[in-house]
Amino acid sequence: MSFHLTDDRIRIMREEEVISQIKEIIKIKNNNVVVGPGDDAAVVSYNRKEYLILTTDCVVEEVHFNRKKTPLFLIARKAISVNLSDIAAMGGVPLYALVSIGLHKAPTQKDISQIIKGLQYMADRFSFDIVGGNLTKSDKLFIDVSMAGKVEKKYLKLRSGAKPGDLIYVTGTLGGSCLKKHLTFIPRIRESREIIKRVPVSAMMDISDGLSTDLIRLAQASGTGFKIHLDKIPVSNDALKISKEKEGAIQHALNDGEDYELVFTVPVKHKNKVPVKINSVPLTCIGEIVKEKRYTGLSSDGREVLIHPSGYSHF
Amino acid sequence: MSFHLTDDRIRIMREEEVISQIKEIIKIKNNNVVVGPGDDAAVVSYNRKEYLILTTDCVVEEVHFNRKKTPLFLIARKAISVNLSDIAAMGGVPLYALVSIGLHKAPTQKDISQIIKGLQYMADRFSFDIVGGNLTKSDKLFIDVSMAGKVEKKYLKLRSGAKPGDLIYVTGTLGGSCLKKHLTFIPRIRESREIIKRVPVSAMMDISDGLSTDLIRLAQASGTGFKIHLDKIPVSNDALKISKEKEGAIQHALNDGEDYELVFTVPVKHKNKVPVKINSVPLTCIGEIVKEKRYTGLSSDGREVLIHPSGYSHF
Repeated sequence: MSFHLTDDRIRIMREEEVISQIKEIIKIKNNNVVVGPGDDAAVVSYNRKEYLILTTDCVVEEVHFNRKKTPLFLIARKAISVNLSDIAAMGGVPLYALVSIGLHKAPTQKDISQIIKGLQYMADRFSFDIVGGNLTKSDKLFIDVSMAGKVEKKYLKLRSGAKPGDLIYVTGTLGGSCLKKHLTFIPRIRESREIIKRVPVSAMMDISDGLSTDLIRLAQASGTGFKIHLDKIPVSNDALKISKEKEGAIQHALNDGEDYELVFTVPVKHKNKVPVKINSVPLTCIGEIVKEKRYTGLSSDGREVLIHPSGYSHF
Repeated sequence: MSFHLTDDRIRIMREEEVISQIKEIIKIKNNNVVVGPGDDAAVVSYNRKEYLILTTDCVVEEVHFNRKKTPLFLIARKAISVNLSDIAAMGGVPLYALVSIGLHKAPTQKDISQIIKGLQYMADRFSFDIVGGNLTKSDKLFIDVSMAGKVEKKYLKLRSGAKPGDLIYVTGTLGGSCLKKHLTFIPRIRESREIIKRVPVSAMMDISDGLSTDLIRLAQASGTGFKIHLDKIPVSNDALKISKEKEGAIQHALNDGEDYELVFTVPVKHKNKVPVKINSVPLTCIGEIVKEKRYTGLSSDGREVLIHPSGYSHF
């Protein structure tokens, strides 16, 4: 995730201004940088056919997990997975990871072992190597992972490619990830690769901060708006569990963070190429990109509501 | 720095066991990994003539700096510099940086600006690009940087290449870095490049945890011992300022951390190729590599003392 605030309270208030401030100061000098700060990951030259993808993301105690309730194995797994999700968002595959760990006291053998096993579990599952890292003292536990991946030039996907008329799809189901999925989600590397090989996707990103927030980012990067059908948003069982009625569950699916699914857009003429499922993961069309820079949701009874980042006006 | 404990208290007790535990669990699968965990940085395939260098290092409030006494500009500069020092240690040049920042409260515009300016200052000075990053909430400020660099295959330097008889050199002066240098040091990228182009260096690393600790690491990686002349260790003015007498200053030069100079070894037949200075940085021969795995220091009156990591037996 490239220069991205991951805490809700500061994100909503300040993220856009922080990012614009960063972009003002940071000047990219090297023309090997294909994509700098602002997308899910950075993209730089690699070889004739492929780009190198570079990304970093961090999980911090009390912000992203509760240390007492969460096994270190799962915390380490999550720290890797959030980075894999960024690489999936670009259409890439992971190659190498570096892991920087802040531990609040001298680590026990079991602590270290649980963390390393969580990292290695993901490395085995997604065929990349953990090539180095760093351990430091820190009052609160954090695991900061940076990752290098690669993507064929022809398959690179950005947030900025959506065009009016393109259909909007999401993978999986959304909402209620705080119950469990935020720790155990499967980053959509395989699904992403399958989708981009079969479908000429015009824009893609991962849903880490909630569909409403992230779809607005995709639309802004593409210079467009969108119109989505609220009752078509695939609602997770956990979102239903939390709210117990459909309307509330939709709100969770729209606004909860940490789904780590993909949202992508497809030119309407290619819609038949989009499969219903990849592996067992459903792909659902939820609406379309529009020219006017408005972000709207249609409820099942035809009313139109404005979508805001992490919240939308009441039904 | 590859899987390296950066807090003194836990490092001394546990670092070697932690690293050996990590190495037991982590299995490198990809034969594109030339150097995995254990050296200053990881090295992976890049192109026909060059390797890619990957490294990460972190600075944490109250461990590496005092937030109230230290301007954010200098903290950010240090976070970059410790990574550049690792790239210098491999003989490489920096290409790209990712920056993960943990901030304890909603950042002010000035906070962000000071941090970004510190990062950008180093990026301009060493001609690399900051391509992305991450901001998250954290009680204690931390800045975790990961960096990609490159090195010509013929110039790659590891810790493990020293042979008995090789002479041991250090750049700059050592000790007393806590007064100021730990924040304002110049990573030895240019000096490293100049040295390896002029001299067939057999092993190299940076001195981040004190000469005694790091030279023992180099000797262990090379399967050798060493003998150094304590009165030849180049003592910094700050080490003299702290201890006020020569013997004490030598102890600081030997054992203080955060010098971020280079220690390297040269086959004795090439010693005439080693310049006295590079730019204005002195290169000083302090001893030699020996076959027997003992780490000894000779005092000016000819007595022999055993060198221990971060401490040695009394004169």
